[in-house]
Amino acid sequence: MDKYAKPSVTVDSVIFRYFEGRVQTLLIKQKNHPYMGKYALSSGFVQEQEDLNTAVCREVREETSVQLNTDHIEQLVTVGTPYRDPRMWTITIAYLCFMAFNDIQMDKAADDAASTHWLDIAMVNGKLQLTDGDKTLYHDDLAFDHWEILLIAMERIKGRLEYCLTILNIMPEENTFTAYLQLFGTFNETYLKMDSTNFLRRFKHLFQKTGCQVATRTKKAATYTYQT
Amino acid sequence: MDKYAKPSVTVDSVIFRYFEGRVQTLLIKQKNHPYMGKYALSSGFVQEQEDLNTAVCREVREETSVQLNTDHIEQLVTVGTPYRDPRMWTITIAYLCFMAFNDIQMDKAADDAASTHWLDIAMVNGKLQLTDGDKTLYHDDLAFDHWEILLIAMERIKGRLEYCLTILNIMPEENTFTAYLQLFGTFNETYLKMDSTNFLRRFKHLFQKTGCQVATRTKKAATYTYQT
Repeated sequence: MDKYAKPSVTVDSVIFRYFEGRVQTLLIKQKNHPYMGKYALSSGFVQEQEDLNTAVCREVREETSVQLNTDHIEQLVTVGTPYRDPRMWTITIAYLCFMAFNDIQMDKAADDAASTHWLDIAMVNGKLQLTDGDKTLYHDDLAFDHWEILLIAMERIKGRLEYCLTILNIMPEENTFTAYLQLFGTFNETYLKMDSTNFLRRFKHLFQKTGCQVATRTKKAATYTYQT
Repeated sequence: MDKYAKPSVTVDSVIFRYFEGRVQTLLIKQKNHPYMGKYALSSGFVQEQEDLNTAVCREVREETSVQLNTDHIEQLVTVGTPYRDPRMWTITIAYLCFMAFNDIQMDKAADDAASTHWLDIAMVNGKLQLTDGDKTLYHDDLAFDHWEILLIAMERIKGRLEYCLTILNIMPEENTFTAYLQLFGTFNETYLKMDSTNFLRRFKHLFQKTGCQVATRTKKAATYTYQT
């Protein structure tokens, strides 16, 4: 073994947005071997002496045309599991990226990406559920250990729902309490069993009434803003 | 610029213990250039296809003889600031490591370390205070960006004091409430202004009375255990 061997280092991005009441994540399809045709996180090599945040934004832009807001990205985990990349020794630094829907001007595959896909993502019965339209994806539909990284992302957000609400950055400025409850329930299903009055009581310190109402299917509902 | 250049990747360990009522961190003195004689975190290169947790434990053992408990280490941050290492392009993965005092059999410098030092560490007036016996250390007494990494460690623990208490792993099993208050105050000074009755009221859900008492300077005080 070469004592001075160096790994390839990549940045992987777990990008979230909120679309029609659902949480979605941006995956690409791999253009090249060894995972040609598989879904994958937007990913790429860090360049020499490149700041890691800069690398994340550059890679996502190159592969998907999406412009991340550096205020809304944060490190998730660095993964160096031996042989996680069949090509070579690779360590990856995974990021959480939160996109406001209106900040997404376009997404268009380029570079190593054959196509881009916004997938619905949620924890259902304690398992990661990932769907591309009607198609449910499973572990082996994803390249590398990207299924595990998505799971770590979901768990991280779940673990912080009551105190660190950076996930709210994907939401519009005003939402009904039911919308917040469903957002929380995407990461932690126990919230879905809570009625909105109890949810309101528990989280009222996080949200401010706007004074406006929106029509829902059955009634008018008050809207609330949030602070992250 | 070589598009396929690879960085050196290191693991840095911020190791905490609790000694005579104070929080301490383990630094080494650098044996070699470019920071010969400076204090530094225990640090070393990840080996080819080596699991990152394994690398952390191996490097700390090689440099200081301390055996970390893998249940009590966690990733802090990965730092890739350009030119952070004057020798070459280096990305480091920093870890938080919590040691119970009784688990430290010995510490003895070896490998790249000239000597080992348990330094008192605390946030005082919003600034990092680091002392080696009577000697106060400053930014330039530390190698690389290790001062900044220590600061990130202190901030991370501070930000989580009310909900994620892995720092308690450095404490003995039973402590007075005043000892817990002072531990919290090491990371967040505002606790030091709180009287122990208020502190007790706020955190009583975290601690269980043991039924035992210890003698303090002025009276007997009840002791409490904790769960992390």
